[in-house]
Amino acid sequence: MAKEKPTILVVNDDGITAPGIKVLLEEMQKLARVVVVAPDGPQSGMGHAITIGKPLRLDKVDLYPGIEMYKCSGTPVDCVKLAVDRIFKDKKPDLCVSGVNHGLNYSINVLYSGTMSAAVEGAIEGISSIGFSLDDFSHEADFSHIRSYISSISEQVLNNGLPKGTLLNVNFPHIDKGIQGIKICRQANGNWVEEFENRVDPYSRDYYWMTGRYDWVDRGEDTDVFAINNGYVSIVPTQFDMTAHHAIQELNSWSFDIK
Amino acid sequence: MAKEKPTILVVNDDGITAPGIKVLLEEMQKLARVVVVAPDGPQSGMGHAITIGKPLRLDKVDLYPGIEMYKCSGTPVDCVKLAVDRIFKDKKPDLCVSGVNHGLNYSINVLYSGTMSAAVEGAIEGISSIGFSLDDFSHEADFSHIRSYISSISEQVLNNGLPKGTLLNVNFPHIDKGIQGIKICRQANGNWVEEFENRVDPYSRDYYWMTGRYDWVDRGEDTDVFAINNGYVSIVPTQFDMTAHHAIQELNSWSFDIK
Repeated sequence: MAKEKPTILVVNDDGITAPGIKVLLEEMQKLARVVVVAPDGPQSGMGHAITIGKPLRLDKVDLYPGIEMYKCSGTPVDCVKLAVDRIFKDKKPDLCVSGVNHGLNYSINVLYSGTMSAAVEGAIEGISSIGFSLDDFSHEADFSHIRSYISSISEQVLNNGLPKGTLLNVNFPHIDKGIQGIKICRQANGNWVEEFENRVDPYSRDYYWMTGRYDWVDRGEDTDVFAINNGYVSIVPTQFDMTAHHAIQELNSWSFDIK
Repeated sequence: MAKEKPTILVVNDDGITAPGIKVLLEEMQKLARVVVVAPDGPQSGMGHAITIGKPLRLDKVDLYPGIEMYKCSGTPVDCVKLAVDRIFKDKKPDLCVSGVNHGLNYSINVLYSGTMSAAVEGAIEGISSIGFSLDDFSHEADFSHIRSYISSISEQVLNNGLPKGTLLNVNFPHIDKGIQGIKICRQANGNWVEEFENRVDPYSRDYYWMTGRYDWVDRGEDTDVFAINNGYVSIVPTQFDMTAHHAIQELNSWSFDIK
């Protein structure tokens, strides 16, 4: 008996018409039956937001021949939740891939990223999940150098599975940098130094644009930032258990004075 | 020379007029100079979302006598970023507290919660941070049983600091349950089983309300869910390094076939 073709859920945060998701679904089509559920507009920086207090839309669209596609009015995480509950009611997909994001999601950006949060949600649902991001914000971004990496990494995950409670955060260097290979990494520590730009509206009231730069404080050669800066594909195994297990012992030594 | 009074940033996700934030700022006022920066409306479930692509407002308000307060048009994480960049330009606050959230943020809800994400952002900024949540969604929620716990836990953090890269996720039982004491816990594993409710609008189009129930799969007695269910205050030391360090070794054994 022939093995049943696997099923792959494709999501993103740049919206259903973004070039990055087209690349991803094309590569996934070679491996499996593909279902796309993506936001109907840009949802960058939405992190793990979900929509509560207002209803959601989920509508079929026909963008690419032969691909089952839905646009969703909610966040990237909403897309995964609706897909699992409505479209994959009987059997969860074998893989959930998110992206390809236009822009890197390394270091702490895993927290802000809708792309990565969709993959995290997939993992919470018990689905093997991967987020893919490319160091290129442009609508004309060239993805040709990363296609074989995307399919190879996805195939490995389909074949091997992932350790329970983990997913992959995969970042790719810009095409101009070339690719030296793959590095399994840890998430670099760092933060954004905000420089909100203060402007004044036509009614003489202040408003603020978020700008800022990423401050790379953790120069470890085992980090994702180091890998990308040196032309490697970074793969960070990522988990949604945020417990700081190493701190439990110290906290147990505190004494609380409750009146 | 007298020690300078510490400064505490108070944020939340239920919005600046929520009863929970009033309780929190009243308790913090006893310990320090307080500055409140909170969303101008409800931002529950916003996770670690930030506002990009549109500008933000930050306006002074006078809700409670003697308290420096600002309402912000953005997400809870935006509030922390704007506060650090605009209000605490010269010196970061000594403590960032978020809440008191109307509703529990234990287990994986740490990811969806705007309250917890604001505290995570505080920690990313290098500020000692705590998120507080109460098992009571009601606007008339009774916070009287948790006030001394809030001030004691905050004092301990002000005095001892927290291990680098960590913050606290504190959840309180409902007043009807009473409080047996404090337990230092790990984040329970679990997930929401969604049951989106499908309705049809007056134009005969489908829409979906997110409902669902929390599925408690991890019955460990060292978890936050177990603590709350048994009438204890749960404190989970939480980190923003999401690397699954235990999985790095396995991934390094994979071989990728790149064409």
